[in-house]
Amino acid sequence: MAAMADISENLANELWDTAHALADAARAAILPHFRAHGLDAENKQAEGFDPVTVADRAAEEAMRGLLAARRPEDGILGEELGITSGSSGLTWVLDPIDGTRGFLSGTPTWGVLIALSDETGPRLGIIDQPYTGERFCGGLGRAEWSGPLGDFALSTRRPRGLDEAILFTTFPEIGTDVDRTAFTRVKDRARLTRYGMDCYAYALLAAGQIDLVVEAGLYPYDVQAPIAVIEAAGGIVTDWEGGPAHEGGRVLAAANAELHAEALALLQG
Amino acid sequence: MAAMADISENLANELWDTAHALADAARAAILPHFRAHGLDAENKQAEGFDPVTVADRAAEEAMRGLLAARRPEDGILGEELGITSGSSGLTWVLDPIDGTRGFLSGTPTWGVLIALSDETGPRLGIIDQPYTGERFCGGLGRAEWSGPLGDFALSTRRPRGLDEAILFTTFPEIGTDVDRTAFTRVKDRARLTRYGMDCYAYALLAAGQIDLVVEAGLYPYDVQAPIAVIEAAGGIVTDWEGGPAHEGGRVLAAANAELHAEALALLQG
Repeated sequence: MAAMADISENLANELWDTAHALADAARAAILPHFRAHGLDAENKQAEGFDPVTVADRAAEEAMRGLLAARRPEDGILGEELGITSGSSGLTWVLDPIDGTRGFLSGTPTWGVLIALSDETGPRLGIIDQPYTGERFCGGLGRAEWSGPLGDFALSTRRPRGLDEAILFTTFPEIGTDVDRTAFTRVKDRARLTRYGMDCYAYALLAAGQIDLVVEAGLYPYDVQAPIAVIEAAGGIVTDWEGGPAHEGGRVLAAANAELHAEALALLQG
Repeated sequence: MAAMADISENLANELWDTAHALADAARAAILPHFRAHGLDAENKQAEGFDPVTVADRAAEEAMRGLLAARRPEDGILGEELGITSGSSGLTWVLDPIDGTRGFLSGTPTWGVLIALSDETGPRLGIIDQPYTGERFCGGLGRAEWSGPLGDFALSTRRPRGLDEAILFTTFPEIGTDVDRTAFTRVKDRARLTRYGMDCYAYALLAAGQIDLVVEAGLYPYDVQAPIAVIEAAGGIVTDWEGGPAHEGGRVLAAANAELHAEALALLQG
């Protein structure tokens, strides 16, 4: 049976301090490379386009250095450098640049994803956008974001029908043919569908700006921080069968239970 | 025969001062409404989704007020409030919120578009993103942008083959079936295609971050500021036949002549 780590208020504060320090370190490591000319990327996968930038590795190394000093007993799952096991039952799940295609294109829609998870799933999450200076934080009693216009509480939108809802996904070419057919059933009922926002879509959902995100082909490090942020804001994130989504794959994130149920029924045909 | 207005250096400076004042006024009018909860929009068109927000009208009214005081002899073509004729041979072409769908969704990809045009087309353009604080300016001897990381020269990317190019378009559902077939020929050859960026894509092209933008169904006020900004940065903007694009319709914007020619040939099949 999965174990939920017992986290006191003091420990929660310490963990949040560490999470913010990680996000600050990632910002400092990444921003000098954003929109730098001549930036090039390796191809990590033989098929498909999954660039890894210098910035990506520099940020993960900076975060791992901080964790080695501050939380050496915790595990780490990093998008770039893999797994480091720990003894505390807590694991930091790091994606230094989620949305590398957006990063390479200069759009401010990529983000630094930081989650802290136990065996039950994510307990704390940050979605950070270094260029706009926005940081979305949820879990362990907090649900808040800050940006160029100030500090705000995170709270998802009230229920509305799918015909009034704004839906986001990163790619129009989402997942397999079967996935795309299911996605299209939701899209055809939504008021408005937008593309290309990477993890920023989850931040907008948590901040009450949009209603739904539907994705496929995600990795655990793509989704664990968004899950913590959205759930803290009052939303729901599951896979397309309605089960836990923190292992990645096909993900449905909704602002509230009513809209989640409506979209889930359409995804399941 | 079309007349190109003769613009002295003194007049150019005055026009740039006015253009910046317009952009500042639009920022002040729009930002209080961005991400405001409960914001709703009228449907301007019976078919399709073209919301007009309170912010859109407030910004155009603020800009028109400034022009009445500073440049009463110039004409105005505004997306919201139509045409005001002038006697100077110069017309301010204003789109207070280009990308209203993005605005309604909370993404920082919409922009304020300000162009100054004579009968030959745009002479000066600003693409302003109020939330990120970015402003891209081109024409009458200037090619520069400013944002949270500082001030920079605008300069498009060097030539590279389409297989190395980054292509942007706002909608995957671009234009008519014929338009979409032509677009797909370009997309299938490009290294990377991204969606959903509204006028921000043109700013990224002018700033040397991406290589191509292909769009259809544009209005003159959608494209005149981007044309001035991109041409000042060294790029090329035409319609899909290679002719002038400032009346809108189907638009191809490229970082350089070589890539423009390669994409144009594919659009023409």
